[in-house]
Amino acid sequence: MTAPGKLYGVGLGPGNPELMTLKAHRLIANATTVAYPALAGGESFARRIAAGVIPAGAREIVMDVPMTPAREPAQAAYDKGAAEIAAVLEAGEDVVCLCEGDPFFYGSFMYLFARLSQRFEVEVVPGVTSVTACAAEAGMPLSARNERVTILPGPLPEEELRARVEGAESVVLMKVGRHLPKIRRVFDGLGLTHRATYVERATLPEQKVLPLSEAPETAPYFSMILLTKGADPWL
Amino acid sequence: MTAPGKLYGVGLGPGNPELMTLKAHRLIANATTVAYPALAGGESFARRIAAGVIPAGAREIVMDVPMTPAREPAQAAYDKGAAEIAAVLEAGEDVVCLCEGDPFFYGSFMYLFARLSQRFEVEVVPGVTSVTACAAEAGMPLSARNERVTILPGPLPEEELRARVEGAESVVLMKVGRHLPKIRRVFDGLGLTHRATYVERATLPEQKVLPLSEAPETAPYFSMILLTKGADPWL
Repeated sequence: MTAPGKLYGVGLGPGNPELMTLKAHRLIANATTVAYPALAGGESFARRIAAGVIPAGAREIVMDVPMTPAREPAQAAYDKGAAEIAAVLEAGEDVVCLCEGDPFFYGSFMYLFARLSQRFEVEVVPGVTSVTACAAEAGMPLSARNERVTILPGPLPEEELRARVEGAESVVLMKVGRHLPKIRRVFDGLGLTHRATYVERATLPEQKVLPLSEAPETAPYFSMILLTKGADPWL
Repeated sequence: MTAPGKLYGVGLGPGNPELMTLKAHRLIANATTVAYPALAGGESFARRIAAGVIPAGAREIVMDVPMTPAREPAQAAYDKGAAEIAAVLEAGEDVVCLCEGDPFFYGSFMYLFARLSQRFEVEVVPGVTSVTACAAEAGMPLSARNERVTILPGPLPEEELRARVEGAESVVLMKVGRHLPKIRRVFDGLGLTHRATYVERATLPEQKVLPLSEAPETAPYFSMILLTKGADPWL
């Protein structure tokens, strides 16, 4: 009987391929099977980041995840992907799952982890998140000394966002996208807009870094708003 | 007149040298001057991570930062380091500052950034933080969908920690160290200890991952406690 293969969930970082780790690079460069999600039939962002490293001839398992608020269609996509990955693992071969950012930080890899980690050996390779990548590109130190950092997804209700931003020090608003007008209202209402920065597609050639007051009307999914306390960092 | 050099603040990731980015590796391997902090005359953790990459013969600027609650001695150390770095930059040479984790996430680089970014070109290269490294090593997905993540430094007062952990979803407690007994009391009081995981020196050979209930009596500075919501990640 063949020993089963190992599943790697590999963080690729925020977008610039040079921000993948040496370990991610090694695992991908030696992969015989890679797996990755693609949103709603579109290009896979994870595959784009790793494109220059995936060996020619590697098997590719694509999970076509529909973009819908309903959870069942996405569940079905991960069920199908997990079954395909399991078949390769059972045949004794490793699978490298490509994950934009970090696999366990708002990443889809956790859905595969939930489906496969009881049956197979799984190793998660952390990656640079968009959080610190945006801070770096914006030139905004995120947290020092005993400051708190609050990470909030943009889809949260307006009232909840207001309450949580109000009590926070450094704030990271993820998944801004179509929630930008709501988030603007929250920041305007709290008088914080002048201290907030909008970052779109951090570390990619098409990156934008703007004061929140100058952010575009429509934001892509991969956009973020950063608010930092701005305490004197000399101390 | 010589054009001034550029200062790079380079994140090295959580400890395992293979978790540095390709970009960090390239910049360090080509550096003529590296700078890094060393705590209280001890070994520099940042230098340890990068040791295999620093070119033989590179100039090394060591900032010996005292471990004291008073801020002035640390300020003086960064003043002195910034002056040494500035002298190299003014001579037209680049300086690569080595930063454990990410430069802008509880990193000392921001003190150099504050002192030098008005006068010199500075580029910050983000790194893998201990947050996602610990989650990966503990096999604990940190955040999915619309979950919030709250990052709290261990030195915060007990009452504040209690209030903030109580209202949170995923919680990351940084800089645990000597604050472990206090943090245990908070988690015990909230009935959350059974869901919390203790991680010490993540990704290093001496790493420990334990349920919080089994954490050692004394924790090093580089330790962390993770609490995740544990919602069904199948959805």
